[in-house]
Amino acid sequence: MLKDYCRSRVALIEAELDKLIAVVGTQPPMIFEAMHYSLFAGGKRLRPILLMAAADAVGGDGSHYMHTACGLEMIHTYSLIHDDLPAMDDDDLRRGKPTNHKVFGEGIAVLAGDGLLTAAFEIMLSQPGVKPDVLVRVVRSIAAAAGATGMVGGQVIDLMSEGRSIDAATLKYMHQAKTGALFRAAITSGAILAGASAKQVTALSEYAEQFGLAFQITDDVLDVAGSTEDIGKPVGSDEKNNKVTYVTLYSLSEAENMARKAVESALEALSDFGGEADVLRELVSYLVNRKS
Amino acid sequence: MLKDYCRSRVALIEAELDKLIAVVGTQPPMIFEAMHYSLFAGGKRLRPILLMAAADAVGGDGSHYMHTACGLEMIHTYSLIHDDLPAMDDDDLRRGKPTNHKVFGEGIAVLAGDGLLTAAFEIMLSQPGVKPDVLVRVVRSIAAAAGATGMVGGQVIDLMSEGRSIDAATLKYMHQAKTGALFRAAITSGAILAGASAKQVTALSEYAEQFGLAFQITDDVLDVAGSTEDIGKPVGSDEKNNKVTYVTLYSLSEAENMARKAVESALEALSDFGGEADVLRELVSYLVNRKS
Repeated sequence: MLKDYCRSRVALIEAELDKLIAVVGTQPPMIFEAMHYSLFAGGKRLRPILLMAAADAVGGDGSHYMHTACGLEMIHTYSLIHDDLPAMDDDDLRRGKPTNHKVFGEGIAVLAGDGLLTAAFEIMLSQPGVKPDVLVRVVRSIAAAAGATGMVGGQVIDLMSEGRSIDAATLKYMHQAKTGALFRAAITSGAILAGASAKQVTALSEYAEQFGLAFQITDDVLDVAGSTEDIGKPVGSDEKNNKVTYVTLYSLSEAENMARKAVESALEALSDFGGEADVLRELVSYLVNRKS
Repeated sequence: MLKDYCRSRVALIEAELDKLIAVVGTQPPMIFEAMHYSLFAGGKRLRPILLMAAADAVGGDGSHYMHTACGLEMIHTYSLIHDDLPAMDDDDLRRGKPTNHKVFGEGIAVLAGDGLLTAAFEIMLSQPGVKPDVLVRVVRSIAAAAGATGMVGGQVIDLMSEGRSIDAATLKYMHQAKTGALFRAAITSGAILAGASAKQVTALSEYAEQFGLAFQITDDVLDVAGSTEDIGKPVGSDEKNNKVTYVTLYSLSEAENMARKAVESALEALSDFGGEADVLRELVSYLVNRKS
């Protein structure tokens, strides 16, 4: 069931991404080509799926919020383009494909990221069928999650931690900022857009926190225990880059245990929800068993 | 009178910038330090002043829209940080001070730009005293002006034109996108926030177009005829970088004539406005006589 749900949502998201980015514009061609390249370089579309699944979970229809969902994917994509730059993680490959700056050059890659981030706000603020005051609240919270105290700040800590040893608290804080904040924004945005109660938003926020933790730990586990083919980058690249991860701070089996615990807590957070939240339940369970 | 107006507005803008960026956050310190550095590296605050002056011009009070005004300055500042990067214009100095990446390193400079752009949207969407539907419309138009068809697109053309000869139409298009679009957004946003009529917005949009043109031509003139001390970078740097400008495409005196004509057209666009638009009138006249 999860597979079918995800397949249909990914198809919807990719069709909308293609349409919405064209609404922003087509000129100059080079920048839209570069933005399009990374938008369609094989993402899992996890953030838009989470937004839609959260809207479904509170009895709404997630497919009504495609502008906001696609905006999240654009923000995620811009962050990958900038993270891959030589001045940051200096990655040549992403999901098995050349990174944006390897194809278009560094200058255009910076601008493609800038263009995607800005387009995300233009598109999210064009979301139809939502009261303007609700839309303002949602988009503002997404900006906060993506910004200097959220995703951008997490990348700053990541960059400054390179080759240094950091403690467990810093590692957790880094991931909460770098990936957790946008996951949470995706989930709470979907809920708020669909008219969730404050209690539901709080429960989903707790789910999101545990989801993010499980996601990150699994990422670290896969870097050690996965296969290069599945994860699209060389196995052991964290160790090679002297990165502190859940696996280097703890052990592989401890990390796997922590991920399982986070999944349990995520499921517990959904205890008051009915069958409408089954996709969220399956998603977090699938997470720790994924191969890429 | 213009000097007093600008002095008081700059003081207001800088106090608010300092306050609003702190509302976004303070952690991690490095990113906020880098953002703060470029925000307070001596800008003219032209875009927030234009927004406020346009609100005043339609009978409103520009000082009510500080969140939106400061957001524009953050967007402008982020674009300067990214434009100065080695992969772009590779500038070591900006307004006589070391550029962001010279102080903080390239990775942090990319992220400081990202952080400022994102903070701009968070802050603009916190603008009090404006109906949410109006705010959505205004912030969406600012995003469009700053994005891939506007400011980012203009920088793409600039980057791709380096060392190549471009024609007058491309030069004009590049500047309209790179600087004109955000000037226009500043001016029309101020007017719309203050409740301008459609006719007023159209007139101010025409003013903005001519203002942008006069501004850019004067920039090119100053690069040839200004003093290094006044403009904060070496005189003749455009020629040294093989840049096509209004002065290389035309002559110095032709360019000066074109700037004067643009000022006349800008003033004409304001013909239906009363004394409330005097600041806009003085601003554009001052523009072509400025030294930096």
